[in-house]
Amino acid sequence: MIKVAIVGYGNLGRGVERSLKQNQDMELVGVFTRRAPENVATEGAKAYHMDELKNKTKEIDVCILCGGSATDLPVQTPEVTQHFNTVDSFDTHAKIPEHFSKVDQAAKENQTVSVISTGWDPGLFSLNRLYAQSILPQGETYTFWGKGVSQGHSDAIRRIAGVVDATQYTIPNSEIIERLKAGEKLELTTRDKHFRECFVVVEDGADKEAIRTEIISMPNYFADYDTEVHFISLEELIRDHKAMPHGGTVLHTGTTHEQTKQVIEYTLQLDSNPEFTASVLVAYARACVRLAQEKQFGAYTVLDIAPKYLSPVADETLRKELL
Amino acid sequence: MIKVAIVGYGNLGRGVERSLKQNQDMELVGVFTRRAPENVATEGAKAYHMDELKNKTKEIDVCILCGGSATDLPVQTPEVTQHFNTVDSFDTHAKIPEHFSKVDQAAKENQTVSVISTGWDPGLFSLNRLYAQSILPQGETYTFWGKGVSQGHSDAIRRIAGVVDATQYTIPNSEIIERLKAGEKLELTTRDKHFRECFVVVEDGADKEAIRTEIISMPNYFADYDTEVHFISLEELIRDHKAMPHGGTVLHTGTTHEQTKQVIEYTLQLDSNPEFTASVLVAYARACVRLAQEKQFGAYTVLDIAPKYLSPVADETLRKELL
Repeated sequence: MIKVAIVGYGNLGRGVERSLKQNQDMELVGVFTRRAPENVATEGAKAYHMDELKNKTKEIDVCILCGGSATDLPVQTPEVTQHFNTVDSFDTHAKIPEHFSKVDQAAKENQTVSVISTGWDPGLFSLNRLYAQSILPQGETYTFWGKGVSQGHSDAIRRIAGVVDATQYTIPNSEIIERLKAGEKLELTTRDKHFRECFVVVEDGADKEAIRTEIISMPNYFADYDTEVHFISLEELIRDHKAMPHGGTVLHTGTTHEQTKQVIEYTLQLDSNPEFTASVLVAYARACVRLAQEKQFGAYTVLDIAPKYLSPVADETLRKELL
Repeated sequence: MIKVAIVGYGNLGRGVERSLKQNQDMELVGVFTRRAPENVATEGAKAYHMDELKNKTKEIDVCILCGGSATDLPVQTPEVTQHFNTVDSFDTHAKIPEHFSKVDQAAKENQTVSVISTGWDPGLFSLNRLYAQSILPQGETYTFWGKGVSQGHSDAIRRIAGVVDATQYTIPNSEIIERLKAGEKLELTTRDKHFRECFVVVEDGADKEAIRTEIISMPNYFADYDTEVHFISLEELIRDHKAMPHGGTVLHTGTTHEQTKQVIEYTLQLDSNPEFTASVLVAYARACVRLAQEKQFGAYTVLDIAPKYLSPVADETLRKELL
């Protein structure tokens, strides 16, 4: 049995707890949190204060780090990797090289293994970009996200004065996807690829038109997109817009000779973004422990790990049943 | 530069020749054939008789074996692997474990690397089955093929008395695919998943109805499917049905908690099946040479190879640009 610790218990941590119940070769040692453990309502797991983690090096094979990329993981992953094998979902794309380098050093100095930046993007989408570009070098790769909730964009709306709560959906332009799949070559702007749809609850007497204008003209978040804003009641928001669906498509269109078109498409359609991301983390936790057993210490990304390491099934059986 | 030899020059070998022209880090040493080399019309490559291959061990980093799975590869891959790193597309699913074992022995005894059973199925589809099942263990995997030409089924029709030529298309049931993606759980028979459409040219005066009956009732090939037969002229067949499109979908539907549905879809839409397969072989030829440089001798399948080995791009750049 692979003994797993969950470090940080929000939506992602809860997703890992659920995923572990589906994996017969893994068992959950406990949830480690900065909050008072008695106030953490897990789905059966024991909760411990984070300070206790360091006393459990012999009971834990791998820590799945479920904190955020903004402030938690840049510090936590290198630190925890000094004592444990780790897996994280660090997703600040621009800072991945720096994060990798720090974690790699911690892992090599302490003879541990860390798999960073797993999940679906970065993660499975990165894998698919790499496979597609390696196989069809004469081609173009397009990534579309959605339909799904963007927490960052929802938060940006919530920071506007007069806004009580909000949910923002990123919606891919399916007409553009179909045209690309049909082999058209398109020069695409940001506006062409995605739409944004916002469901917003405002305070009584708030100036809705001013808020709408502030949303759709917000630089980086909305100004470059076609954005639709709906004002709804808090009841409606809670009833209809508190799920966390997401997904997306990596599309690669290439030619192998003259006009011979070849299209590779990878699409995820997820009812729950955090539960799916958690399931990816759990599969890579298995890979992480195997690499540590082979003493291949250091930091890894999904690009560095042979697919078979993710599976609990023996190599011979995989060859017989999946090839 | 990675120096590549093509062994066997049919549609697949020609596809490899074309693919190599798109890969700047690879160069083609030549095509090796059992035919008289002067009768082999390549697209620029030098042609040699197969007997000359053994004299070129110093000039070749990897041989891409482009023979057939029925009789060529079971003998050729273990033999050539005694002297060279090799890549093949052996696709007789039931015999892959035996083939792997023979090739692995040849590779380990002679300090070479062989990547067997690459292409898209087995190959990229196998990869996607493995990733999906490892991430969503509580789920079902479905593989659909087509729309595309099945050479085996086309050949089976050609063997019927009175038939001059034929092309058979395998067509996936797109309604079933949509229902599965929507989360329905279906018990599927062979007949539910695919249709077969045949374009057949017959001799003057042949009994079309008897031929139609013989086709649709043919065991293993057609009896278990809904099959449509069209009789057309040889001119029409040559004009409209001599391309080799193919493709298919690996669909995995799972749940992460109660009714939380998660769908992973991988779809290929290929204008040319042999050229796409060839492009996969070429990417794995690069992986093969790297593994040999690292002295990791033995046989591999796509399941055993870290994705980064397929790419000519440096690891740091991949992390920066693709993650």
